[in-house]
Amino acid sequence: MSARVGVFGATGYTGRELVRLMRRHPRATVAFTTGSGGGHLAHEAGLDVAADAYFLALPHGVAATYAQKLRAAHPRATVVDLSGDLRLPTAESYKQWYGHDHKAPELIGQAVFGLSEVYRDRLPGAKLVSNPGCYATSVMLPLVPLLREGLVETDGIVADAKSGATGAGRTLREDLLFCEVAEDFSAYSPGRSHRHVGEIEAVLAETTGRPLEITFCPHLLPVKRGILTALYVRPTRGVDALRSALHAFYDGSAFVHVGDGAPPRLSDVQETNDCRISVHAAAKGQAVVFSAIDNLVKGAAGQAIQNLNLALGWPEADGLVSAVAKGARS
Amino acid sequence: MSARVGVFGATGYTGRELVRLMRRHPRATVAFTTGSGGGHLAHEAGLDVAADAYFLALPHGVAATYAQKLRAAHPRATVVDLSGDLRLPTAESYKQWYGHDHKAPELIGQAVFGLSEVYRDRLPGAKLVSNPGCYATSVMLPLVPLLREGLVETDGIVADAKSGATGAGRTLREDLLFCEVAEDFSAYSPGRSHRHVGEIEAVLAETTGRPLEITFCPHLLPVKRGILTALYVRPTRGVDALRSALHAFYDGSAFVHVGDGAPPRLSDVQETNDCRISVHAAAKGQAVVFSAIDNLVKGAAGQAIQNLNLALGWPEADGLVSAVAKGARS
Amino acid sequence: MSARVGVFGATGYTGRELVRLMRRHPRATVAFTTGSGGGHLAHEAGLDVAADAYFLALPHGVAATYAQKLRAAHPRATVVDLSGDLRLPTAESYKQWYGHDHKAPELIGQAVFGLSEVYRDRLPGAKLVSNPGCYATSVMLPLVPLLREGLVETDGIVADAKSGATGAGRTLREDLLFCEVAEDFSAYSPGRSHRHVGEIEAVLAETTGRPLEITFCPHLLPVKRGILTALYVRPTRGVDALRSALHAFYDGSAFVHVGDGAPPRLSDVQETNDCRISVHAAAKGQAVVFSAIDNLVKGAAGQAIQNLNLALGWPEADGLVSAVAKGARS
Amino acid sequence: MSARVGVFGATGYTGRELVRLMRRHPRATVAFTTGSGGGHLAHEAGLDVAADAYFLALPHGVAATYAQKLRAAHPRATVVDLSGDLRLPTAESYKQWYGHDHKAPELIGQAVFGLSEVYRDRLPGAKLVSNPGCYATSVMLPLVPLLREGLVETDGIVADAKSGATGAGRTLREDLLFCEVAEDFSAYSPGRSHRHVGEIEAVLAETTGRPLEITFCPHLLPVKRGILTALYVRPTRGVDALRSALHAFYDGSAFVHVGDGAPPRLSDVQETNDCRISVHAAAKGQAVVFSAIDNLVKGAAGQAIQNLNLALGWPEADGLVSAVAKGARS
Repeated sequence: MSARVGVFGATGYTGRELVRLMRRHPRATVAFTTGSGGGHLAHEAGLDVAADAYFLALPHGVAATYAQKLRAAHPRATVVDLSGDLRLPTAESYKQWYGHDHKAPELIGQAVFGLSEVYRDRLPGAKLVSNPGCYATSVMLPLVPLLREGLVETDGIVADAKSGATGAGRTLREDLLFCEVAEDFSAYSPGRSHRHVGEIEAVLAETTGRPLEITFCPHLLPVKRGILTALYVRPTRGVDALRSALHAFYDGSAFVHVGDGAPPRLSDVQETNDCRISVHAAAKGQAVVFSAIDNLVKGAAGQAIQNLNLALGWPEADGLVSAVAKGARS
Repeated sequence: MSARVGVFGATGYTGRELVRLMRRHPRATVAFTTGSGGGHLAHEAGLDVAADAYFLALPHGVAATYAQKLRAAHPRATVVDLSGDLRLPTAESYKQWYGHDHKAPELIGQAVFGLSEVYRDRLPGAKLVSNPGCYATSVMLPLVPLLREGLVETDGIVADAKSGATGAGRTLREDLLFCEVAEDFSAYSPGRSHRHVGEIEAVLAETTGRPLEITFCPHLLPVKRGILTALYVRPTRGVDALRSALHAFYDGSAFVHVGDGAPPRLSDVQETNDCRISVHAAAKGQAVVFSAIDNLVKGAAGQAIQNLNLALGWPEADGLVSAVAKGARS
Repeated sequence: MSARVGVFGATGYTGRELVRLMRRHPRATVAFTTGSGGGHLAHEAGLDVAADAYFLALPHGVAATYAQKLRAAHPRATVVDLSGDLRLPTAESYKQWYGHDHKAPELIGQAVFGLSEVYRDRLPGAKLVSNPGCYATSVMLPLVPLLREGLVETDGIVADAKSGATGAGRTLREDLLFCEVAEDFSAYSPGRSHRHVGEIEAVLAETTGRPLEITFCPHLLPVKRGILTALYVRPTRGVDALRSALHAFYDGSAFVHVGDGAPPRLSDVQETNDCRISVHAAAKGQAVVFSAIDNLVKGAAGQAIQNLNLALGWPEADGLVSAVAKGARS
Repeated sequence: MSARVGVFGATGYTGRELVRLMRRHPRATVAFTTGSGGGHLAHEAGLDVAADAYFLALPHGVAATYAQKLRAAHPRATVVDLSGDLRLPTAESYKQWYGHDHKAPELIGQAVFGLSEVYRDRLPGAKLVSNPGCYATSVMLPLVPLLREGLVETDGIVADAKSGATGAGRTLREDLLFCEVAEDFSAYSPGRSHRHVGEIEAVLAETTGRPLEITFCPHLLPVKRGILTALYVRPTRGVDALRSALHAFYDGSAFVHVGDGAPPRLSDVQETNDCRISVHAAAKGQAVVFSAIDNLVKGAAGQAIQNLNLALGWPEADGLVSAVAKGARS
C-alpha cells in the first residue's frame, strides 16, 4: 500500500519540484499540498491531515513552527524540513546567521542533518530530518571525506560557488527579474556572510573536531538550475590522495560520482539527484575540487526524498533519477 | 587631420569591436580592414596600405608574422598586436604555452606589454605593443599593485574567472553552439593549464622579482560579454591595506575604479572600457578581490585603443567609454 | 545654452533609457529626475522645477494628472507623455481600453500623436506630445504609408508581434522573474485584447477615413530588448508596390530603413532609434511585412527624444543613434 | 521479450532524444546506434544488425538510401524515417523543395505519413513511416481537423511559427553560435520558401481535395526547445465551431490537448510529447489558433516513437510523457 506524504509549501520552486518528483515515487502518494495563495494561513489546514511523512518547503522561521506542531499531532510520522531552521547546532548560531530568535528552540539538536551519503547511518528511523542547504550540499559532499582523512589543510579553504536563479526561490525581488539576471553575472554575500556558511562550518567542525572558517563566495548565474562549486584546497598528501579518498568514499553510491576527466558541468546533473565531483592539480601546494549538483534536486527536493527513503527503509533511489545510472554519460 | 588606422582580422568578435569603437574615435579613421573570408591570404593586401597604426586581431601564430612584415614595411607606424604572440618573455615559454615554435622570435622582448594602467610609462612612443589577454587583464589589474607593495602572500593566489562566450571568439566549435552554452555553465583548463597563466605568471614574476605560480580556473558563462574574476589572496597587512593600496594606485585613472560596496557585476562594465574592483574580508587570513571587465573592450579592443592613444600621445580615453565617467552608476 | 529637461519616472526601464540617452544630447541637460522610491509622492517635487521640457515616464492614469499640472505651471514648456494616457481620441475609448475613467479628459485631443516620421508636420512647436506605444510603433510605421496609398486591403490585417521583456516594465510580477521567462516563450492578450490595439486602430482609422479592426497577437521573448513584428497583409496592387511605397515614404529619413534582403532581426536595431522594415511575397494574394525596433528606444525613449527635437526645432537625430548612419550594417 | 531497435544518427539533437526516450521504453531496447563520428560510413555497420525496428535520424538525401537498404535487408522490420526524404508525394515536389533528385524514388508513396493522431488508421502494420517535420506537425495538427470539416477558408491561412534552436540541428553554423542567437530573434525563409511548406501544403491538399497555398514564416527563438505557432484563419461558421471541432477530434487522445484558457506556452510542452492547442477570437472574420509542441519530442523523436508504437500495435503512449496525464497542469 502506498504511503501518504504531505507537502507544505508546494508553490515555490522547491515545493513544485518535490511534488513533481513524488508523483513518480513508487511507494508514496502526495496526500495533500499547501500553497502560499492565502498567506501562511493556507498551510494550517495541512496540520490536520494524517500522513506518513511531511515535507516542509516553507520559509525559515515558519518551518520550525510547523515541524513542532506536526511532531505533536503526528508523532509517528517522519518530518523532513527543507528550510534552514534545524540546520544549526545552537540557538545562538541560528540567531547569528538568521537574524532572529529560533521559533522552536526545543527542536534544536533533535533533527538528523540529512547530508545523505555522509550521515546515512543516522537516517534509518529518523522522525525529524533537516535537509541541508543547496550550496552547503555542493561544498560538504566533496569536503567531508577529505577532512575526515586529514587530506587537506583545515584553514584557507575557499569555495567559489555559482548557482542558477531557482536557488533564490520564487520570490518577487527586482534583482530576480529576467531583465536583471539575463546577460549578467554577479557575486553576493562574499567571504563569510552567506547563511550557508553557518551550516557548512558547523558540519566541518564536527568532522574535524575543531572550529574552522571557510571562505565562501556565491554567485548568481543566468540559468535556471544547477550549482557548480570550485573548492580550492591545500592537500597534505598530494592531489592523487584526494581523488583516491573520494573514490573510496563514494564509489558504489547511487548519486555521488567522482570523475577522472574534465570538470563536471551543470548539464551533467540538471534534473538529476547526482553530485559529480572532480579533482585537479593546480599551483604548487594546491588543488581544485569541482562539484556540480542540481540545486532543486540534490540541493533540495531530491535529497529530501533520498532522506525520506533512508529514514523509512525504502530503496535509497526510489523516485529519483541519476544520469549515470541511466547511462546518459557513462 | 585624422590618423589612418588599419585593422587586420575585422570579422571576429574582437575585430568587429575594434572597428565599432574606432568609428567613434575623434582622431583616427579606419583606413582598411581585412577579414577571414578568403582565408589568411585575405589579410595580405593590408600589408601594402600605408597607415599610422595597425591593429592585429589575428590568430596567434599568424599575428607575429604580420607584425614582423608591418615593421619592415612601415617602420614609423605603431603596431598593436591583440594576439598572444608577443606576450611571453622567451621563445621557450611561448612554445610551452602555445605548443609550437614562435614565428618571429626576433620580435620577442621588443613589444611593450600593454596593461595600460600598469605600464603607462612605457607606452608613449612605443612602435610595437602587445595587448594582454582578457582573463589576464582581469587578474593582473588588481594583483599587480598589491604584489608591488608586498600586501599579499605570493604563493597560494587563486583566480576563479568567469567569461562570456565572445571570449572564445567567433569560432565554429560545437561547444559554442547556442544549445550547448545556454542554461549551462562549465569550468575548463583548470589549475595551471590555460594559456593566460603564462602571461600572468610572467608579469607577476617581473613585479615581485621572483617566479611564482598561480591557480587559475576559467569558466564559460551563458552570456555574451564580460569577465568577473574572484581573486582569493592572503593579505600580509590586513584587508583594509589592500583596498587602500588599490585606491592609491587607481584613483584618478579613467577606467579602473575601486569600489567600497557590493562586488562589481558584469552589467556594470559591459560595453565600457572600465575595470571595476572591490575588496572583501573572508575567512581568517584571507581576502577576496573581485574584478570585472568587458572581455571585448578592456579585455581586448578597448585596451588596444587605449594603448594606441598612449603610444601616440593622444588623450587616453579618446574613443572609449566609461560608465563611471558618464555617471551611469556613480 | 543647454536646454533644461526633467524626467518624471526615471527608475523604470524607459525612464532610465531616457536619462541615459539625454546624457549624450548635445542641446539639453537633465535638470532633474523623479523616481518611484517614495511612492507617487516622489514625483510631486518635480512639478516645481522650471524646465524647457518634461518627459513623463509614469504609469497610465498617473501621467495625465502630471501633464495637466505641468501645463498649468509651465505653459511654455514642452511635455512629452510616454504613457498611454493621451493616445486615444476619446474618453470613451480610453475607458474601454484602460478600464477606468480618464484622469484629465480636457487634455484629450490636445496632444500631437508622436509617431515621428508619420506626423512630422504636426510636431514643430507642439507643447504636448503623446508618445506612441512600443508595439503600436512597430505596427504603424510600416502600415500607415501602405494604407494611405490604398496598397493593402483594410480588413484582415494581422500583426504577430514579439517583444523583449523590458517591454513589460520593471514590474514585480511573478511571470517576469528570470526563471519564468528564460527558456520559455508565450503569447498573451491575443486577438484584439491588448491595449495597443486601441491606438493602432485609431491611427489606422484616421489614415483610411473609416474604422477598421486588426488582429494583434503580442508575445514575450526571453530577451531584454527589441520588437520584431510580422504583418500579414493582402496587397491590392502586388507585393512590389508595397516595397516601393515604403521606400518612397522613408528613404532619406534618419531612422526608418526599408531593406530589400533578409528580414530585419532584433540585433539590427537594439540600442538604436532605428526601425527596419522588409517586404516579402507569401501565398497567393498575401505579403509579409516585417518591422524591427528597440522597444526602449524607437518604441519609447528614443522616439520621445526625436519628438522633442522636432517640437523644439532641433536636428531630428540629436542625441540618438542609428546603426545605419554609423555604418554598422550597411 | 524486448523488441530490438536501431538508431541511425544518434549524435544529433533528434537522435540523442530518440535514444534518451527509448531507454525508458517498456517494450524495446536500443540494439545499436550509429553516429557521425566517422562520416556517413559510420552508419554502414548498422545495416547488418538485425532488429525489429530502425529509426533514421539522418540528413535528407542520406536517409532515403538507408531506408531502401534496410527494407531490402530486413523486410519484416519497421523503418521510421525522421528526415524529409519520404514526406513529399512526388519526385518533382521533392526536387522542388530539396533542390536535388530523390535518392530512392521507388520509395515515394510507400511510406505512411506519421502525423500520428491524423493518420492513426494507416499506421498499424506499417513497415515504412515518414515522420513529419517539426514545424509541419505544429501547423497540421490544428489545421487538418478544421479543414476536414470546412470550418476555415482554405485561402489566406497564415502560420507564424517560432522554434527553439535545437530545431536547426547540431550543426556547425555561425548563425547558431551562442553569441549570435542569445538576446536576438529573427525570421527566416519567409512566405513560402521553407521546406516544410511542401509537406504542409501536400497534406492540406489531400485533406481538402484541392491544392492550396499557405503563408508560413518560421522564426528562431533564443531557447533550446519548443515551437509555438500562431495560425491566423478565417472561420466559415464562427470561432466557437473551431474550438468544438478540435475538442471533438482530440478529446480523449493521449497527447493533443485543446485548452479553453490562455494560449499554450513552450514550458507547457517542453520535454513532453504533447501538442497544446487553443482558439481565440480576433478581428471580425478572423481567429487565431495557437499550437505548442516540443520540437524534439512531438516534433521529432517522440512522434517517431508514437508511430512505432502504433505500427507495432503497442500502447500508443509507451515510452512517452504527457504533462497532462501526469497532472502537471490539469
